[in-house]
Amino acid sequence: MEKKKAETIQSWEIVFPNDANQLGTMFGGRLMAIMDKTAAIAASQYAGRPAVTASTEAMDFIHPVKVGDRILTQARVVWVGRTSMVVKVDVIAENPLTHKRVHTTTAYFNFVALDKDGKPCEVPRLLLETPQDQHEYEIAEIVKKKAIERKKHIMQAREQQENKT
Amino acid sequence: MEKKKAETIQSWEIVFPNDANQLGTMFGGRLMAIMDKTAAIAASQYAGRPAVTASTEAMDFIHPVKVGDRILTQARVVWVGRTSMVVKVDVIAENPLTHKRVHTTTAYFNFVALDKDGKPCEVPRLLLETPQDQHEYEIAEIVKKKAIERKKHIMQAREQQENKT
Amino acid sequence: MEKKKAETIQSWEIVFPNDANQLGTMFGGRLMAIMDKTAAIAASQYAGRPAVTASTEAMDFIHPVKVGDRILTQARVVWVGRTSMVVKVDVIAENPLTHKRVHTTTAYFNFVALDKDGKPCEVPRLLLETPQDQHEYEIAEIVKKKAIERKKHIMQAREQQENKT
Amino acid sequence: MEKKKAETIQSWEIVFPNDANQLGTMFGGRLMAIMDKTAAIAASQYAGRPAVTASTEAMDFIHPVKVGDRILTQARVVWVGRTSMVVKVDVIAENPLTHKRVHTTTAYFNFVALDKDGKPCEVPRLLLETPQDQHEYEIAEIVKKKAIERKKHIMQAREQQENKT
Amino acid sequence: MEKKKAETIQSWEIVFPNDANQLGTMFGGRLMAIMDKTAAIAASQYAGRPAVTASTEAMDFIHPVKVGDRILTQARVVWVGRTSMVVKVDVIAENPLTHKRVHTTTAYFNFVALDKDGKPCEVPRLLLETPQDQHEYEIAEIVKKKAIERKKHIMQAREQQENKT
Amino acid sequence: MEKKKAETIQSWEIVFPNDANQLGTMFGGRLMAIMDKTAAIAASQYAGRPAVTASTEAMDFIHPVKVGDRILTQARVVWVGRTSMVVKVDVIAENPLTHKRVHTTTAYFNFVALDKDGKPCEVPRLLLETPQDQHEYEIAEIVKKKAIERKKHIMQAREQQENKT
Repeated sequence: MEKKKAETIQSWEIVFPNDANQLGTMFGGRLMAIMDKTAAIAASQYAGRPAVTASTEAMDFIHPVKVGDRILTQARVVWVGRTSMVVKVDVIAENPLTHKRVHTTTAYFNFVALDKDGKPCEVPRLLLETPQDQHEYEIAEIVKKKAIERKKHIMQAREQQENKT
Repeated sequence: MEKKKAETIQSWEIVFPNDANQLGTMFGGRLMAIMDKTAAIAASQYAGRPAVTASTEAMDFIHPVKVGDRILTQARVVWVGRTSMVVKVDVIAENPLTHKRVHTTTAYFNFVALDKDGKPCEVPRLLLETPQDQHEYEIAEIVKKKAIERKKHIMQAREQQENKT
Repeated sequence: MEKKKAETIQSWEIVFPNDANQLGTMFGGRLMAIMDKTAAIAASQYAGRPAVTASTEAMDFIHPVKVGDRILTQARVVWVGRTSMVVKVDVIAENPLTHKRVHTTTAYFNFVALDKDGKPCEVPRLLLETPQDQHEYEIAEIVKKKAIERKKHIMQAREQQENKT
Repeated sequence: MEKKKAETIQSWEIVFPNDANQLGTMFGGRLMAIMDKTAAIAASQYAGRPAVTASTEAMDFIHPVKVGDRILTQARVVWVGRTSMVVKVDVIAENPLTHKRVHTTTAYFNFVALDKDGKPCEVPRLLLETPQDQHEYEIAEIVKKKAIERKKHIMQAREQQENKT
Repeated sequence: MEKKKAETIQSWEIVFPNDANQLGTMFGGRLMAIMDKTAAIAASQYAGRPAVTASTEAMDFIHPVKVGDRILTQARVVWVGRTSMVVKVDVIAENPLTHKRVHTTTAYFNFVALDKDGKPCEVPRLLLETPQDQHEYEIAEIVKKKAIERKKHIMQAREQQENKT
Repeated sequence: MEKKKAETIQSWEIVFPNDANQLGTMFGGRLMAIMDKTAAIAASQYAGRPAVTASTEAMDFIHPVKVGDRILTQARVVWVGRTSMVVKVDVIAENPLTHKRVHTTTAYFNFVALDKDGKPCEVPRLLLETPQDQHEYEIAEIVKKKAIERKKHIMQAREQQENKT
């Protein structure tokens, strides 16, 4: 199977009053919805099939976003397994008057490609062209590894708890 | 400072056509927005102050949710630091005809309480009444520990990459 | 047929800028939409079938709700006929800073359960467990009785008007 | 004070998939929101001031509305007190292909006019020009009278209940 | 074929915080969506069939609309071809306190009527009853003529550009 | 004043059931709202100030967009006057399964830059770097010229009509 190059999906939005709390700070959940939409387009375009969100990891809200800011969301497939893809999403906020840009949010989304019957199906292998591509691939592997460790530790703790009771 | 008990915040929603992709499966991002809203109410009610999303961890979409399903989102503060809180969120989907319920999603949200000037401020200490409360507290600690490890590993990888280039 | 117990459906919401008029007071219509959604879940869950709104009675907006308030909507089947159900809905608003709660709205919704062809169909008989259940049942009967009287009086007035002209 | 004539406020809408349940029938709550918006324009335009919903009466969903239907909502002040107004709202649904129109919903909304400080303030006296205006005024009086009777009966039942316990 | 009279479709809306930019001025795009909805009802009602937007012409935002304003959108078929219709749309904004009305926006929408297979189909011929109807018809012809000229000039310029390169 | 280069603003969206009519075709008005949002970001970013829509020209819906399609909207300032800017907007729709892309819509938006008091203010002069930039500038001039001619002809027709009556 030939390897495929991942494209970056961009999406600009304006932050509206309804997107924000009483302090004028954008709700995390509203931003998550935008990130998931952009990541879903990146994943399904890469896979050439519908793709659904399986989990998210390392979603960090680094800087608050304010009402009136313009936000640029960028999503790109950085790692692929047999039927799953990791999409890295970054959000940059731009103040409309000062033009100052800040990197506000970063997250890793796991998507699964689905066939006509809604069953997971294979995705193309990822072409890593640049050292930066290779680097992002390795970061995604760290994210995945820590998620697996966490799952294992939680499972152990749940079992111990059940044995106690 | 006296310890405070955490309340569970519940929210029922109906899944609409616009919440779903072409397969009739609810978008992860739409569910994230509902989870964040419910978690924000739990966090700010616990803190007695506005609270903003700092990060999410271990957000797993275990079962697909379908258009027409009713979903019950439950959020509760399970861990607190000095100015931050971990809110555990669970989503249960109910088929409107068969009445069958499935546990579809689980996630941990980190919130920070803010004072009048938008600066982080102290939150009450958490009262752990039952063994279950204690257990959920320990799971939250595992989640936090793995997030710190991940952050450290990513930082190291980023530094190595920068040194190379 | 065995009698069935009614469950209370709870739903928390945050009041957004778009939900309010220029005075910062929540629109009645926005609150009605939330109440109807919560009541519809209560009715269809009780009936085990789709249920549609047939009428509302005694919808009173007692206290204004403000932008930023958190509102808790509670809906419960309190009376049932052969194919119809009365759902009582109460809304409590909580100020996010003072934690003060006020009972803002109350209403009675009539729902009809529908079969596969969209025809009204029988619903389970209601189990009244406590004196409070019995009391709420009697209040619902008053509400229904007055609606019937009103309908009769309006019909008489319409007929007199038609005879005049 | 000179008497004022009431204008009819019209609003056409298209019924969207998200407005409807699994049977393709429009949610009552969505229709209530449209009716309240139209009634609020009628009331505040009549009063020349902001007006808020105080209660609704006799809201009857006579015929189901379907996805794709066009709906015409008409609202008009039909009764006024010192600071309150009764707005009658009617909804007509039109099938986009057959052009067949049905009267689907009717309701009475009570609004209160507010001054700058959010306190109730006087509204103009209503000019009844035609016998039809006079007739609608009388119907509104029946609606109001039955609501007062209902309130009284409920209060008595609540008091008896409290005395028992 | 008998000629058909066009009806005016009216729609009142309230301008919400989310409809406006940081200066409190309503977004053009939000107004366009309302105008298109109202025009689509006018066109499909006239044609007795679904109708889709083919183009817009001469959309002028003459006066800014402010949050809290009530806007009245009026749409009417003013010209028809074999399968297409021109709908003129006017928007009037009313200040809720001063009652002052201003004509804020005007536009011409071209719609095409569609049959069951989504193919363009014939529409009734338009009955022009008054000199004003005749006048609006002529204005629509000017609008159409200038659009055709523009299309021709742009095509020529595009061809010249391609020949150069 | 130094000349400024215009940036292209991109925005990807998914077409939802609520964005479409009964034939599954996206409403023109929904697309207009997305185009205006993207154009507003392009204009205000270029001007370094808030910018409001003054008019649109030559908005052509060339191919229908379907529910489930992903659409890419691209907006760029192509012409500037003293206080106004012309933004060209193109929309491309991508079928999520076949990956086939079609150019569905094109439009020219006129924006005016505003100062702190909401008055029109000067914008930077536009740097035309490539022959393509020069070509798009000339097309925008054709669009503007035809709009001015149309305005003049309509005004003459209105005057003649008034003189008749």
